[in-house]
Amino acid sequence: MTDMTAQKEKSHQKKMEKLKENIDASIESASLERGVCILLTGNGKGKTSSAFGMVMRALGYGHKVAVVQFIKGEQLSGEELYLRDQCPQVKFYQMGTGFTWDTQDRSGDIAAAEKTWAVAEEALADKQYDLVVLDELTYMLSFKYLDKQRVLNALQNRPFEQSLVVTGRGGGSELAELADTVSEVKEIKHAYNEGVMARKGVDF
Amino acid sequence: MTDMTAQKEKSHQKKMEKLKENIDASIESASLERGVCILLTGNGKGKTSSAFGMVMRALGYGHKVAVVQFIKGEQLSGEELYLRDQCPQVKFYQMGTGFTWDTQDRSGDIAAAEKTWAVAEEALADKQYDLVVLDELTYMLSFKYLDKQRVLNALQNRPFEQSLVVTGRGGGSELAELADTVSEVKEIKHAYNEGVMARKGVDF
Repeated sequence: MTDMTAQKEKSHQKKMEKLKENIDASIESASLERGVCILLTGNGKGKTSSAFGMVMRALGYGHKVAVVQFIKGEQLSGEELYLRDQCPQVKFYQMGTGFTWDTQDRSGDIAAAEKTWAVAEEALADKQYDLVVLDELTYMLSFKYLDKQRVLNALQNRPFEQSLVVTGRGGGSELAELADTVSEVKEIKHAYNEGVMARKGVDF
Repeated sequence: MTDMTAQKEKSHQKKMEKLKENIDASIESASLERGVCILLTGNGKGKTSSAFGMVMRALGYGHKVAVVQFIKGEQLSGEELYLRDQCPQVKFYQMGTGFTWDTQDRSGDIAAAEKTWAVAEEALADKQYDLVVLDELTYMLSFKYLDKQRVLNALQNRPFEQSLVVTGRGGGSELAELADTVSEVKEIKHAYNEGVMARKGVDF
């Protein structure tokens, strides 16, 4: 080993020792063990897929999972087909009325939202579920299809050990306040805007 | 129906018609069908889970998938256990040396990175794979464990139909340039900073 390389190795090791110290210290300071509420918001690609990645994570431990999807198109997308066909142990419910700009029917949408919410509310009251995903719930709040206070109460009062993932743009400051972790997925660029079609198995 | 409600319904319908027009127009203008490269970056929670959600999406259509993980801890996390145990059809390779701040050994890390890259390179040259995930690849570039140009060439020259997801903070402007879609996951807040422990089935 040359002197130069030896020095580089040593300086690397020193930096990594410091980094490890910092990381270990912050791991130690986190000591509260309970279910968490995660809000995935923002205008970028990756919110729903991230929620489904956490479903896979939970299933890896044999956890009990419920997925409730608000809005969504009339056709099942890949991850939904997978859940339906490969994961009968997951409770899976989809509003399935199509996007609200397709239905163009406010009263019909509200009725469907209420029906879907009833399924969500049941899961949020059932401590058997380790993980509940409420995909695109935020739109139900921004369109005022659901009563905000009722929704926030149910999220807040869920079982202590239950984790929860909520996805969708917006959702309001009270939802963000209630969440333990909030990630904003920002679109830096999107293939779509370059004329590339949405891709099966990646985009839907 | 009162006049007020009727008016509200009508105004809603008008707004939704306009929205549908805009959405339909942009769908129509996207006409190029090919595999896409997606970069999930930023400091927030949700990058790896989003990549695994896309794996589930692809599996829903029976697509062929390869997942190569750079860095990562010595214990498999939930989604990795799931892939290993439930998805033998997925090619899954993990560098598995632990985080670089744990190993504190630069030469050893570089050798492991090279070995892992060889697996990635093989998948990127094999048009059987519909989707390739390179989890935490960006750190290999920022630590200069891998030759940047060699990596960029392999990503760029992958089969036309193959989609690719790269995750990790940073990664540099050339990688972002090469990607079709870039999402930056921003940490707005994290449970961790409130003293809440990382949660099994959600965080790992």
